[in-house]
Amino acid sequence: MLQEKYQAAVNALHECMAACNHCYDACLQEDHVGMMVECIRLDRECADICGYLEQALLRGTPVVSELAKACAAICEACGTECQQHDMEHCRKCAEACFQCAEVCRGLAA
Amino acid sequence: MLQEKYQAAVNALHECMAACNHCYDACLQEDHVGMMVECIRLDRECADICGYLEQALLRGTPVVSELAKACAAICEACGTECQQHDMEHCRKCAEACFQCAEVCRGLAA
Amino acid sequence: MLQEKYQAAVNALHECMAACNHCYDACLQEDHVGMMVECIRLDRECADICGYLEQALLRGTPVVSELAKACAAICEACGTECQQHDMEHCRKCAEACFQCAEVCRGLAA
Amino acid sequence: MLQEKYQAAVNALHECMAACNHCYDACLQEDHVGMMVECIRLDRECADICGYLEQALLRGTPVVSELAKACAAICEACGTECQQHDMEHCRKCAEACFQCAEVCRGLAA
Repeated sequence: MLQEKYQAAVNALHECMAACNHCYDACLQEDHVGMMVECIRLDRECADICGYLEQALLRGTPVVSELAKACAAICEACGTECQQHDMEHCRKCAEACFQCAEVCRGLAA
Repeated sequence: MLQEKYQAAVNALHECMAACNHCYDACLQEDHVGMMVECIRLDRECADICGYLEQALLRGTPVVSELAKACAAICEACGTECQQHDMEHCRKCAEACFQCAEVCRGLAA
Repeated sequence: MLQEKYQAAVNALHECMAACNHCYDACLQEDHVGMMVECIRLDRECADICGYLEQALLRGTPVVSELAKACAAICEACGTECQQHDMEHCRKCAEACFQCAEVCRGLAA
Repeated sequence: MLQEKYQAAVNALHECMAACNHCYDACLQEDHVGMMVECIRLDRECADICGYLEQALLRGTPVVSELAKACAAICEACGTECQQHDMEHCRKCAEACFQCAEVCRGLAA
């Protein structure tokens, strides 16, 4: 069953998606939103692609590797951006992104 | 934090999304695919809208009620279709759909 | 063919999706991003649900009415928010949203 | 404006998304659905990623290249599958997929 085969990946993708959506929401509430614009953009993209890949794995997509490569690169980009900010939500998001990027590189291989 | 506020809903949506994707994949592997066409269509729609709403809750969407109403109706439609088939994957999917429909009606209220 | 049956709706949804994505991008580039936060959130939601419904129509979704109702309400909400801002991208977005809301109400009926 | 910058790509992605959704719907109505299973799976994936990338371009995504690479590979896979079937909807879908793959390779470069 796909849910078992991909359990670790689904968990990492889900964690990352949740962290990115939380960070997106929190960035939009920061006093200095103007400094968070790139973070907002990447949080959205990373949440969207993680949510997409999670579902694609669970429905037996025939193109795991192609999607996982893109997802790994986007997680890496989002983590790198979040890392530059001091807020708790950015710090946690960066952590989830880097962990998810590693899992995605595993899927892509 | 939204993740805590919406924990029960996010869990139900996630369970339903996973059950629908599994059912979609399993239906496409059945010997008599021709009998599962409506189930395949609804599994896809239900997985997609549940995945969408789950993310929307986690990013603080301003339109919870509108999305939850649509999601409840689609879960109900998918559960009703799945209920008509004997396979384990359909039975489990119907159960997840009806549970999620109830949670969504709660969100919409 | 669905593409013909739904041509007018697909066009309105596509116009609205493009206008919302443009407005989202432009809002994130405004000097006073802090004043555009609600617009950014609704632009994203409206673009996502319009893109979703457009595809759902084209693949023969069995749940047109449920999705169209949600989409109409979200277009209405986004248009109402955009209307409060003077920028060209907001004005155009509001126009596309209200037109799309009307088309969606037609689909839902 | 992004809509102008990416006009050709947005058009190709939109054509491909529509062709894949039409092919998905038509495959599910074929008498021998069992022979179309892989086509159904790839039509869905290709429609979803094309719809995703189209929106991502229109909202100024910071990760064009990563998404375009995945999209090109998936379009290629879907076109190759569709090419093996004689139906008009598969033939047209293959054509749209190969054209879109080329455009995506251009975006990725």
